[in-house]
Amino acid sequence: MSVDITAKSNHEPHADWAEQLSQLTGRVETLEKQIDEDKLVLGVMSGSFDATMAAFIIALGAVASDMEVDMFFTFWATAALRDPKKRVSKGILDKMFGWMLPSSSRKLPLSKMQMFGIGPPMIRGVMKSRNVASLEKLMQDAGELGVRIHVCTMSMDVMGLKAEEFIDYPNIDYVGVGSFIGMADRARQCFFL
Amino acid sequence: MSVDITAKSNHEPHADWAEQLSQLTGRVETLEKQIDEDKLVLGVMSGSFDATMAAFIIALGAVASDMEVDMFFTFWATAALRDPKKRVSKGILDKMFGWMLPSSSRKLPLSKMQMFGIGPPMIRGVMKSRNVASLEKLMQDAGELGVRIHVCTMSMDVMGLKAEEFIDYPNIDYVGVGSFIGMADRARQCFFL
Amino acid sequence: MSVDITAKSNHEPHADWAEQLSQLTGRVETLEKQIDEDKLVLGVMSGSFDATMAAFIIALGAVASDMEVDMFFTFWATAALRDPKKRVSKGILDKMFGWMLPSSSRKLPLSKMQMFGIGPPMIRGVMKSRNVASLEKLMQDAGELGVRIHVCTMSMDVMGLKAEEFIDYPNIDYVGVGSFIGMADRARQCFFL
Repeated sequence: MSVDITAKSNHEPHADWAEQLSQLTGRVETLEKQIDEDKLVLGVMSGSFDATMAAFIIALGAVASDMEVDMFFTFWATAALRDPKKRVSKGILDKMFGWMLPSSSRKLPLSKMQMFGIGPPMIRGVMKSRNVASLEKLMQDAGELGVRIHVCTMSMDVMGLKAEEFIDYPNIDYVGVGSFIGMADRARQCFFL
Repeated sequence: MSVDITAKSNHEPHADWAEQLSQLTGRVETLEKQIDEDKLVLGVMSGSFDATMAAFIIALGAVASDMEVDMFFTFWATAALRDPKKRVSKGILDKMFGWMLPSSSRKLPLSKMQMFGIGPPMIRGVMKSRNVASLEKLMQDAGELGVRIHVCTMSMDVMGLKAEEFIDYPNIDYVGVGSFIGMADRARQCFFL
Repeated sequence: MSVDITAKSNHEPHADWAEQLSQLTGRVETLEKQIDEDKLVLGVMSGSFDATMAAFIIALGAVASDMEVDMFFTFWATAALRDPKKRVSKGILDKMFGWMLPSSSRKLPLSKMQMFGIGPPMIRGVMKSRNVASLEKLMQDAGELGVRIHVCTMSMDVMGLKAEEFIDYPNIDYVGVGSFIGMADRARQCFFL
């Protein structure tokens, strides 16, 4: 049992291999903790029909690529989650806000070509004729495929929206901005729509 | 040929260095596959003059920093790629959509200060007087410098836009949302404008 | 002092451990240089009250999670940094632009429900009644907590805004798009609002 250990001698400054290997292992562990997770985070904010539609199309595309998806609904977008059949009692200010906000995903305005209200049904009609799934179908699919929806509690507070008036969705919770930062931190990408 | 192998003996639990080194190499290979590529992905969606301008300025800035750039044109932004000199025959619904959408990058509206149409030429005039390159020049530069443009086929379908009516651009193709997810996956950053 | 070196012999193809270890260390160093820094970059562009508010809420949330935050103010958002008490002499074109742009963060419009100007004070009133800090308080906190603001010089140039008319902010500077690319490059996330 003979072995040429010349190589080691030639690298005398790096002689303590065990120590080196242990240090390097530590550095690799640190990197492994810092590397992005296979996760997409979508900030949904504008609340327009087109941006919300885009958010769910991207979310479902990411799920199809085996990514996890977290959606953070904030500001105007929170109204897209309202269920018009659910009614909750509110103070006068919250009621007023409630009247001004869309009562459900079916009432979202377009960011362009709103055309006094005929734009959205027109676009929906065209999408249907081109076999694009409706926003409501995309939302249902997202729920079934494990896309998580997190609603910004500060936005709910400001707009007087209650958890009880939101749609039935399998993975929905109500979080602060700190949770959003935590989600985004290790995500592969995070963008706002 | 003598060597002090005391160090190794002292690290007896880690004695099988070859095995350890091989495992660690595997972990480093995994990390190397997961690390972001030197690539920027820009989702271009709003279709306003200002957002489209910003997208190309950022794209060219990234190219100047030796990053690869992929632009994904979706929803309203697809109209910015129309060439008004190219005409294609369409059904009545697609024709109507075509009339309502900007006929080229030169007709994009501002997201603010549209002022019944005088905003965009005013901003363009100011930009010119301040030696900012025009949007059309930026688009041409982007093409020459290898920025890739990917147009969302679903948006084309909905808005009745055909590949034949888009500008001549060296690196343009027509893709679904899955391709966009694939692009964004390993990009250093991906944001929507 | 005896040691079993059979293991090494069994891995003869990988015998040159020192060389392997040195190469692997090099690969780990490369990864460490490529890994994202604990930093968030926010592109602030739309200049609406809601988007600017969201940007500072997210910035402060990130600071609370021990992340560094760089905000890049560009296009319409630059006007949010104006201090109405500071006046600078300008040419006629820049003056006109100055009149059309909001004179301070207190004058930012809402992206929706502007309602001829009553929307913003209404939202501010509701936010105050729900104990949400004002935009101006958030901006002050951001300054004190080390959030850096970088203003896009090209936007300043186009809109005729001067550094002398901006608010007193501890960490503010004036940069080109190249600096923004550099910031975003290694950030954990970068998104536009």
